[in-house]
Amino acid sequence: MKYKNPSLSIAERVADLLAEMTLEEKLGQLLQPFGWKTYVKGDGDVQLTDTFKDAIANGGVGSLYGVLRADPWTEVTLETGLSLREGAEVTNLIQRYAMEHTRLGIPILFGEECSHGHMAIGNTVFPVPLTIGSSWNTELFRQVCQAVAVETRAQGGAATYSPVLDVTRDPRWGRTEECFGEDPYLISEMAIAAVKGLQGDSLNTDHTILATLKHFVAYGSPDGGRNADTVRMGMRELMEKDLLPFQRAVAAGAKSIMTAYNEIDGVPCTSSKELLTHILRDKWGFDGFVITDCGAMSQLRHGHQICETEEEAASLALKAGVDMEMSGETFGQYLQSALDQQLIAVSDLDLAVERILRLKFELGLFERPYVNPALAEQVIGQSSHRELARQAAREGIVLLKNKEQALPLSPSRGKIAVIGPNANNMYNQLGDYTSPQEREQIVTVLDAVRAKCSGFSEVVYAPGCRVKDPSREGFEAAIAAAASAETIIAVVGGSSARDFGEGTIDLKTGAAVITDTFMLSDMDCGEGFDRAQLNLCGVQLELLQELHSLGKKLIVVYINGRPIVEPWIDEHADAIVEAWYPGQEGGHAIADILFGDYNPSGRLTLSIPKHLGQLPVYYNKKRSRGHRYLETDFHPQYVFGYGLSYTSFHYDNIQLNQPSISVDGTCTVSVDVMNTGDMAGHEVVQLYIKDCVSSISRPDKELKGFCKIYLEPGEKRTVHFTISSQELQFVSADLTWIVEPGRFELYTGSNVEQTLSIDLQVVQ
Amino acid sequence: MKYKNPSLSIAERVADLLAEMTLEEKLGQLLQPFGWKTYVKGDGDVQLTDTFKDAIANGGVGSLYGVLRADPWTEVTLETGLSLREGAEVTNLIQRYAMEHTRLGIPILFGEECSHGHMAIGNTVFPVPLTIGSSWNTELFRQVCQAVAVETRAQGGAATYSPVLDVTRDPRWGRTEECFGEDPYLISEMAIAAVKGLQGDSLNTDHTILATLKHFVAYGSPDGGRNADTVRMGMRELMEKDLLPFQRAVAAGAKSIMTAYNEIDGVPCTSSKELLTHILRDKWGFDGFVITDCGAMSQLRHGHQICETEEEAASLALKAGVDMEMSGETFGQYLQSALDQQLIAVSDLDLAVERILRLKFELGLFERPYVNPALAEQVIGQSSHRELARQAAREGIVLLKNKEQALPLSPSRGKIAVIGPNANNMYNQLGDYTSPQEREQIVTVLDAVRAKCSGFSEVVYAPGCRVKDPSREGFEAAIAAAASAETIIAVVGGSSARDFGEGTIDLKTGAAVITDTFMLSDMDCGEGFDRAQLNLCGVQLELLQELHSLGKKLIVVYINGRPIVEPWIDEHADAIVEAWYPGQEGGHAIADILFGDYNPSGRLTLSIPKHLGQLPVYYNKKRSRGHRYLETDFHPQYVFGYGLSYTSFHYDNIQLNQPSISVDGTCTVSVDVMNTGDMAGHEVVQLYIKDCVSSISRPDKELKGFCKIYLEPGEKRTVHFTISSQELQFVSADLTWIVEPGRFELYTGSNVEQTLSIDLQVVQ
Repeated sequence: MKYKNPSLSIAERVADLLAEMTLEEKLGQLLQPFGWKTYVKGDGDVQLTDTFKDAIANGGVGSLYGVLRADPWTEVTLETGLSLREGAEVTNLIQRYAMEHTRLGIPILFGEECSHGHMAIGNTVFPVPLTIGSSWNTELFRQVCQAVAVETRAQGGAATYSPVLDVTRDPRWGRTEECFGEDPYLISEMAIAAVKGLQGDSLNTDHTILATLKHFVAYGSPDGGRNADTVRMGMRELMEKDLLPFQRAVAAGAKSIMTAYNEIDGVPCTSSKELLTHILRDKWGFDGFVITDCGAMSQLRHGHQICETEEEAASLALKAGVDMEMSGETFGQYLQSALDQQLIAVSDLDLAVERILRLKFELGLFERPYVNPALAEQVIGQSSHRELARQAAREGIVLLKNKEQALPLSPSRGKIAVIGPNANNMYNQLGDYTSPQEREQIVTVLDAVRAKCSGFSEVVYAPGCRVKDPSREGFEAAIAAAASAETIIAVVGGSSARDFGEGTIDLKTGAAVITDTFMLSDMDCGEGFDRAQLNLCGVQLELLQELHSLGKKLIVVYINGRPIVEPWIDEHADAIVEAWYPGQEGGHAIADILFGDYNPSGRLTLSIPKHLGQLPVYYNKKRSRGHRYLETDFHPQYVFGYGLSYTSFHYDNIQLNQPSISVDGTCTVSVDVMNTGDMAGHEVVQLYIKDCVSSISRPDKELKGFCKIYLEPGEKRTVHFTISSQELQFVSADLTWIVEPGRFELYTGSNVEQTLSIDLQVVQ
Repeated sequence: MKYKNPSLSIAERVADLLAEMTLEEKLGQLLQPFGWKTYVKGDGDVQLTDTFKDAIANGGVGSLYGVLRADPWTEVTLETGLSLREGAEVTNLIQRYAMEHTRLGIPILFGEECSHGHMAIGNTVFPVPLTIGSSWNTELFRQVCQAVAVETRAQGGAATYSPVLDVTRDPRWGRTEECFGEDPYLISEMAIAAVKGLQGDSLNTDHTILATLKHFVAYGSPDGGRNADTVRMGMRELMEKDLLPFQRAVAAGAKSIMTAYNEIDGVPCTSSKELLTHILRDKWGFDGFVITDCGAMSQLRHGHQICETEEEAASLALKAGVDMEMSGETFGQYLQSALDQQLIAVSDLDLAVERILRLKFELGLFERPYVNPALAEQVIGQSSHRELARQAAREGIVLLKNKEQALPLSPSRGKIAVIGPNANNMYNQLGDYTSPQEREQIVTVLDAVRAKCSGFSEVVYAPGCRVKDPSREGFEAAIAAAASAETIIAVVGGSSARDFGEGTIDLKTGAAVITDTFMLSDMDCGEGFDRAQLNLCGVQLELLQELHSLGKKLIVVYINGRPIVEPWIDEHADAIVEAWYPGQEGGHAIADILFGDYNPSGRLTLSIPKHLGQLPVYYNKKRSRGHRYLETDFHPQYVFGYGLSYTSFHYDNIQLNQPSISVDGTCTVSVDVMNTGDMAGHEVVQLYIKDCVSSISRPDKELKGFCKIYLEPGEKRTVHFTISSQELQFVSADLTWIVEPGRFELYTGSNVEQTLSIDLQVVQ
């Protein structure tokens, strides 16, 4: 029983344990059944299910997925789900059963969804990754991830299925909200922050968890923006764009990766030995384990149809480099017969088991399998986490338009009308992958505006319409409310809210109404909700047009999961604020910006098109010839990196510390940035690089650095960026990374189109 | 002077000639300056320009591009251009000068544009390739190509820059009209027909010319549908889709290939040794020569920016496998200095010169450098060619809708109103790459309807509106005309007509009016005219809606270069006829269909979407998961292979001559097709194949055979297709073509969705 001795090396312990294990026990380690099916909550107590006990009796399970997950899909509700304490108690109960009812007492790894906060009841709901990306603040995101890890681990969760590192190229895709944006460099920096924040310096703590990079790979470029559709892409683009964030995060120490559903040029990711072994392990030195997305293995047979039987599917995946299957259904049912059919060998199995066990040892699960329920109650949802959620939202909200300083508003300048379907709908501001919420935990825009104006001005509210519903029955009340006010704050957009049984909003009174059907659902985004258009759904535009005709100041706030293309609004709104899904504190964050308590510093991480017919629109376009359309050019409405501030920043004096470096050299580019307005605020200083001539056709500009700084009015700071081969390299003709000598142009500025530039010579 | 001896082998003659040549003479062979700049037509005679004579004095030129080309770009008009006889005389004049003023007397190769007929004054204008593709009649296309070769060679043209083999995947692209459609198999069959028709059994005749396959490669998949934009594609898709038609055409004997402007995954086609040497020559055994598209070499420096100097651009292209440069500007100015800089060796040059000379010998240019002007007058535009143009158009026109047998019309059933901007506009029906035309050579829909109805019914005409112009000033006259008629034939769509100085149509009178500006141009398609939408431009839809409100029978005829997405028309028109650009006899062809003199047999070769937001839409989608959109599914409005007939065809009794074959075996699938209606007509019997399980993810169905048959009412015919490895293979994991054993489903039917199926077992 050497494996139980913590003073031995993990390698020794793994080897010892593996040698002890029966085939059945090995097979068990590769499975990750659905965790919410392991327990039933009764009157005052929680019972383990027979299914779970049977699994434990038959080799056990390596992992459980989403024991604490609660949402319409799992059918776990506020009533049937677990409180903070109960969550911790249940994972302890499960763990204890597993440890005590198996021969070897191997602890279970609890894997949880934590895309923007642990998707369990009562946990802090942070802004979605698209908002986080727009903050360009990696340190802030690291803190967010740390908070998520603290909350998750406190209830026993030891792995998260985040960060999502997909590079979005098509906003029709419903999972755009779950991603940081369109730029691989920015995503890489966010990925590194996530790994640091989630995994910390050691996994063997009560406040760190295993980061799972997903979806490996190119899942963000489905044909037609249709979720999990085929990806048409060459290897060079794959390496430079989609693989890069994974590569950087692996280098930063990420220990788990999830395979994507899609195929690339005919090869499904879940059965790609090239991806899962040659690139990931052989080239990058990844030493963690690989898990499938839920159902991805079965899709090898039923979707991609690359094999005849489930045994083949399981074997292809295992031999490609998959170690664990989320759901465990294919591995669980067919891996044994795959062995019998000699499609795989026990040595294939051992490799996967070894990798899984190693992580369990690294997580300290053998020494500390249980958690402290009191800690869970203490740390989850703590006020500093709420504050972090608010700050992350404030920093990620992008001010798109501000005509004649329409913003900030003053709370004492007369009556304010808060109008729109997303003004007071809690789930609509939280995004997909969110657990059921208590209303009082969520701050809507209406809540926050009322709080700001309390004691100063009257605030009136009317929903006006729903997101998708064609009904205009709420228009009259909305127009009446708006007509009585000085200023209109119209909160429109989309929703990724699934059916939490909330019903809908009564359009005449604004009250929540329970409905029997999902007919009036607002959901137009989220996983599986791809769109063929990018305009506002339903009658939202008409509502705005009627509001505009009142001649009042019209402030439009977007709460939504993908870019909105509405030229009329771009032209007629006095101000436009894009919040994406800002999380539970989103109302406060938006109000902070509307009333000038926070100076907007969010910057776009994806290009917002002018027209649907321009797709795909992304800033790092190849510099090869590309024409305008008959109707429009190919420039976006709002460019990458764009976002307004209430102050102004002046860039000057771009300098290199040396005009020339060798291909493996390093230099520093600096630029002076001065706050020339009269309000303090953050600026995102961006660095782009152009390799003027290169043997492979390149984008015109690529983001290669950024830095978020805070400047008082009149304050000037010199910002430095280090340039080395990492910033200068690209994938050559023979698919290796190289730096080619020659002239490079470096650009610094506040977005991709507003920049100063300087030349750098790179010599052999 | 062995090279002048026709009894020696071409290899011997080439070797001898090459050994005689100076460096300057070799360089000259790689050039293809603009041919229309070699002559000036004066009063009654034609003079050679000094520029041309200088070129001849300085090493000569290997080829001339477009001596006979006439269009707004070349600024050659009906007045300044050449008659049929003059064209032949001028190429003789040029040739004679070159032969007699150079040391070695190497004849010039005259290369011409013949995308749908030789683009020279007075030559027959056939339908565009999109119409030709829709005919699914390869033998008919072979005859068309043969006619084109006869006309072109009669004036001295010895090479054509066709066929265009680009596989279209994005109808926003303005060159969609120049292609056969979205399916690589269909394009391959058309490509083979083109090679046979153009090159015949021997190039050494007075009626065959060199076929140039273009654009090599993947030019039909530009990002965003923007001409020459980057292509994002993996090698497997490239091999199976875009390379395939080229591979098949090379195997059929094509001797010339043109490089594409675009890059693929970072590598410009014009500098790709992988494409131009490894694949084209080493793998496929191509023994012709490679020419660039016009300006493509210069783009290596100025567009793709993959090199610092023009010398490098020239060297990269030459060493990749380019033999000749259209325009000759980069090779002409920089190849000598590239040699001086030792970027290339004389042996690189020799290889290209050898290839060019070999083709000139094969064409018989050394023995018969001159043509007979009398022959040109006799064969060009001959009535059999006009008839072929009419038949090709008839067979390519697709009947999309025919509600309650709205068609065919009877010429004696009352007054007919012919309305619309494309009813009587000759250039609008000819497509891009068309020379200036005499009005009496072109039959518009109005001309043809008048001819059909002459003596039976009155025909009234009003243009109603222009294609793009927002003016509704013609509505009144159009509505008045339509109101007086029994039936409305509305001819709308798009235009690829450049500014031939025709001016526009007076909307009130329908008369042609000369304008000073190009402001009222109808052009919305053609090279460089990509669109961000797929609806009808201008006020055409409004015109149709007003016409529809009259309550008359509304027959909509589309004349245009890319799919039209107009749901209102799909719903409200009584019949819809899609003609693409049907060529000079297009009016007759359309009228033949409208009045039932020809039973429509055109079938779509590309999928017509329901909505712009569905793009890309193509039938041979991967069978991996792919979701619907919130607003719509991903199925097109009109599927691949679709097209109505005035009769009905019943499919029955699909059979295999053996239920199982080996991977290298052959079998035959047959199906009975019966004309169950009461009109004789053509049916396009289509064969699709599904490889049910394959190691690489595959499309659900792929076209692998088709056959156009003619059936009298009640007639039944058994159609046979041969299935062998060519139909069953795909590109495997290691990028080789393989057939995998297992179950295949074979489908026969009248379009991709209406099929009968049978299983085939393939065994090892």
